Amino acid sequence: MDKPTLKQLIDQAAGRQAADMVIKNAKVVDVYNGRIIEGTLAIGNGRFLGISDDYLAPKVIDARGQYVVPGLIDPHIHIESANVSPAVFGSLVTPHGTTTILADPHEIVNVAGMRGLEYMVASAKKTALDIKYTMPSCVPAANPNLETSGAVITADEIQQSYDQGLTYGLAEFMNYPGVVNADDGVLDELLVSLNANKLIDGHSPALKEQGLNAYAAAGIRNDHECTQVDEMLDRISRGMYVYLRYGTVSKNMPTLLKGVTPQNARFCCLCGDDLQSVTLRETGHLDESIRVAIANGIDPIMAIQMATINTAQCTGLADRGGIAPGLKADFLLVDDLEQFSVNQTFINGQKVVASGEYLLTTEDSVTGFDDLLQTVHLDTFTAHQLKLNLTSDKTHVIGLQSISRTQNLVLPVAHTADGDFQYHPDEDIAKVAVVERHHLTGNVGVGLLNGFGIKNGAIATSIGHDSHNLVVVGTNDTDMVVAIEALKESQGGGVAVQDGQIIATLPFVIGGLMSNEPIDTLIEHQKAFNAICHDKLHVTAHYEARRNATQRHPELADY
Amino acid sequence: MDKPTLKQLIDQAAGRQAADMVIKNAKVVDVYNGRIIEGTLAIGNGRFLGISDDYLAPKVIDARGQYVVPGLIDPHIHIESANVSPAVFGSLVTPHGTTTILADPHEIVNVAGMRGLEYMVASAKKTALDIKYTMPSCVPAANPNLETSGAVITADEIQQSYDQGLTYGLAEFMNYPGVVNADDGVLDELLVSLNANKLIDGHSPALKEQGLNAYAAAGIRNDHECTQVDEMLDRISRGMYVYLRYGTVSKNMPTLLKGVTPQNARFCCLCGDDLQSVTLRETGHLDESIRVAIANGIDPIMAIQMATINTAQCTGLADRGGIAPGLKADFLLVDDLEQFSVNQTFINGQKVVASGEYLLTTEDSVTGFDDLLQTVHLDTFTAHQLKLNLTSDKTHVIGLQSISRTQNLVLPVAHTADGDFQYHPDEDIAKVAVVERHHLTGNVGVGLLNGFGIKNGAIATSIGHDSHNLVVVGTNDTDMVVAIEALKESQGGGVAVQDGQIIATLPFVIGGLMSNEPIDTLIEHQKAFNAICHDKLHVTAHYEARRNATQRHPELADY
Repeated sequence: MDKPTLKQLIDQAAGRQAADMVIKNAKVVDVYNGRIIEGTLAIGNGRFLGISDDYLAPKVIDARGQYVVPGLIDPHIHIESANVSPAVFGSLVTPHGTTTILADPHEIVNVAGMRGLEYMVASAKKTALDIKYTMPSCVPAANPNLETSGAVITADEIQQSYDQGLTYGLAEFMNYPGVVNADDGVLDELLVSLNANKLIDGHSPALKEQGLNAYAAAGIRNDHECTQVDEMLDRISRGMYVYLRYGTVSKNMPTLLKGVTPQNARFCCLCGDDLQSVTLRETGHLDESIRVAIANGIDPIMAIQMATINTAQCTGLADRGGIAPGLKADFLLVDDLEQFSVNQTFINGQKVVASGEYLLTTEDSVTGFDDLLQTVHLDTFTAHQLKLNLTSDKTHVIGLQSISRTQNLVLPVAHTADGDFQYHPDEDIAKVAVVERHHLTGNVGVGLLNGFGIKNGAIATSIGHDSHNLVVVGTNDTDMVVAIEALKESQGGGVAVQDGQIIATLPFVIGGLMSNEPIDTLIEHQKAFNAICHDKLHVTAHYEARRNATQRHPELADY
Repeated sequence: MDKPTLKQLIDQAAGRQAADMVIKNAKVVDVYNGRIIEGTLAIGNGRFLGISDDYLAPKVIDARGQYVVPGLIDPHIHIESANVSPAVFGSLVTPHGTTTILADPHEIVNVAGMRGLEYMVASAKKTALDIKYTMPSCVPAANPNLETSGAVITADEIQQSYDQGLTYGLAEFMNYPGVVNADDGVLDELLVSLNANKLIDGHSPALKEQGLNAYAAAGIRNDHECTQVDEMLDRISRGMYVYLRYGTVSKNMPTLLKGVTPQNARFCCLCGDDLQSVTLRETGHLDESIRVAIANGIDPIMAIQMATINTAQCTGLADRGGIAPGLKADFLLVDDLEQFSVNQTFINGQKVVASGEYLLTTEDSVTGFDDLLQTVHLDTFTAHQLKLNLTSDKTHVIGLQSISRTQNLVLPVAHTADGDFQYHPDEDIAKVAVVERHHLTGNVGVGLLNGFGIKNGAIATSIGHDSHNLVVVGTNDTDMVVAIEALKESQGGGVAVQDGQIIATLPFVIGGLMSNEPIDTLIEHQKAFNAICHDKLHVTAHYEARRNATQRHPELADY
């Protein structure tokens, strides 16, 4: 802060100088005392000045009794999961009252390394939403002997991201076995962060007892992977904040709320982790979390605290989280705390959302990052690369149990005379392949998949957690080759093929992960794509490249 | 942290390597969930490893069901108020469970500037107590036209103290009128602290409404001067932590506890501010605050939170405040949470107190700081310098109402033919003088004092808040001169004189503020000195050079 700014802030707060704006007839949510204060809220220099009917300003807003709530903060979310750019993401979440996010650009950095981070930082500048990035800690996320990632991040790049001011802390340390085992490279990554006093985010599904002690001792002070109350209490007792997740797929919050008490609520925060665009557009973000929390019996102000002051304290964002003099004037207007429907959103004292609509123009060009539009690197792909060599009547098959759970099966599988897989319409088994797309290695992994439902065709995508190689599932090699070649042509996204013809596409041209279409077009495209996959190809599960803890866990255990 | 340390910490926490020490049969106070966890607590590398009966260690302590409580943290205290060195202060407070203090060396820095701070830092290294200093923000504290201080601290010295790692933040900003008025020098001091992300401590007695908004907007996020519940709630609503003070003289906590709720308790901390040695020796420190809080109806764990995790969060001491893996192993053993009598104190996993006794040797020499033993600079003092020139039968008199309150009186006062004050045994009026002792200016301020009770003699002290010039009160100039000359000879402390003879002394040779006697000798001296002042000189109030908010307030309002 510079002196003229501080002086003006004090002069305005003291009432010697007019405020920039006052909001009269406001019911201000005091997250500190847990009460409502009625009065006139003044704002100047993009910050709150205080509550007093003595404030005057050229701009007067009549809140007509609406509640003024501090801007909502999501401490852990992946923008790429919405398949949109950071700029567009801002237009999606601010109408729901989100004013700050800590985003982990894990996906784009796995694809494009520091260039991916730089793009995310550049795009974030094009939205009113305050986006702070954490530095992906697990790139690659899988054992390099199992899969090839687009980039490798070490302690050096993490340090570089701090030195250049690109990141706010270290993103979820998914490689928790590496932490518990005190692996050398892991220690390096932790140390550069600890010694720079940076936030280190956790990710420790099902870890407990001494393993969890080791994880916490490493300086990791939050976790968003709890699914049970005892896991939550275990972490809070170890000085960790627990992020109660309510994403599109992983909805742990309602269960965890049973463990929230007046004593430990201060160490609980709400987070989204992974939210699809359609969820953000049609259902909500942290506003929806707050509604669900209240519906589950949490006091409205306590629910708001979990999305504001608690999160600010956990993450060290001392300049926000409440409505207090000197803090960033990020806030929302709502009619009713229990309904929690956001009417208007302000960031730094500027109105950015009214009547649920984002008011600014979203400029989501990728100027200067043309290289991120060319991230599917592949030589000519042939059916030969998909050939299996089955030698017995029974073979290993990946069993899809749900969108986020698989099991290892051994099933009878028909094969051709030369040992290749042969699709049979009575068996829900298809071929699945992962095709390396970063470094032209030609690596292809081929296996079998049960439970996907696909009949007569193929689906391919460039979203394949965590390295985001191409994944293709099909009943015949011809359609699978067409799908892979189509993705190479489109440079990422999704494609559905039947009888050699492309029947649906979903273009995610930015890193093969994010769309550059207008948001409504994207959502229409996604719905249409899902419908075709379901109606024409008979895919039973939604077609979604979903990240989740359950998948990652066994993968990392192999580290 | 270095890599071998982090690796060992994780290895020990994971149980792969033996812990250094385990405490079995412990009832661990979980300040995060607000519950008690029974089990075996392991410690390694001076940090907590976790709670599990699976831990093994060469050193085993059987807690026999005692409670293990996180080390107590005082966020705002003045060591000099106990008239002892920092090293001795450590031996006084650790038996009461205090393991960390944020100390404001306001007095010694007003006397000796940066040299005073350097001495405090050096002495702090000689105790197990973790002493972090805040940098005095108000040196001088009074308008230089009214009084001469020993030193001047500006933003430059504050920056220097940060750069050299001498201080942790900016000490109580007593000059709150200067903050509210946005005085230029004040802005400079605030800015070096804000831009270094340093804690800025507050001090804003009775400030409210827009004035308080301006104070908070300046980035000041705590206050220890509340005396009423509404003041407390006002500050908490403005995002400020409130320190509930329970000092030797100022005991605001019991009143303020009426405003503590489950919602706002997290923003409340316990602090001592000013505690005399005899209080610390015979009554307690934060342990006494906890006992009093519990006696006033506060839940024991909530009271403990107010002296541990709340304080750690307020001050940004992320490595302590609870019993959790990786945190500093600062803790105490108590039999009963309500009685809260500390049996043992551990700091960094080392036992420093057992059976109420500090176990380490206290080395409180001032080697290298001989200059701090010579801080009373005075030319020969004569009665002429005390002469008054009263011209009417009534004159202005300072009325002592209590130990911390004065009033302006106009009273009939007898005087000699040449206008000097004449003591009359029927009137409780004595002469009072402030004698500049830092820069040989020869400045002397002389006035009259009502309500002190003194008869036939004089008392002088080198403790005179906030500039600590010599203050002398007497019924005759002769005794007053003897007292001043005696202080010059002893280089500070207190002296009582009757009939030209020194009848009691109290040597505070370090800066004229702190004793270098053994603590028990000091306390005996203080008691004897007070008794003589009371019995022989008939002083009604205790002889105590007490700092307090009420005195400072009007003084600063003149700034």
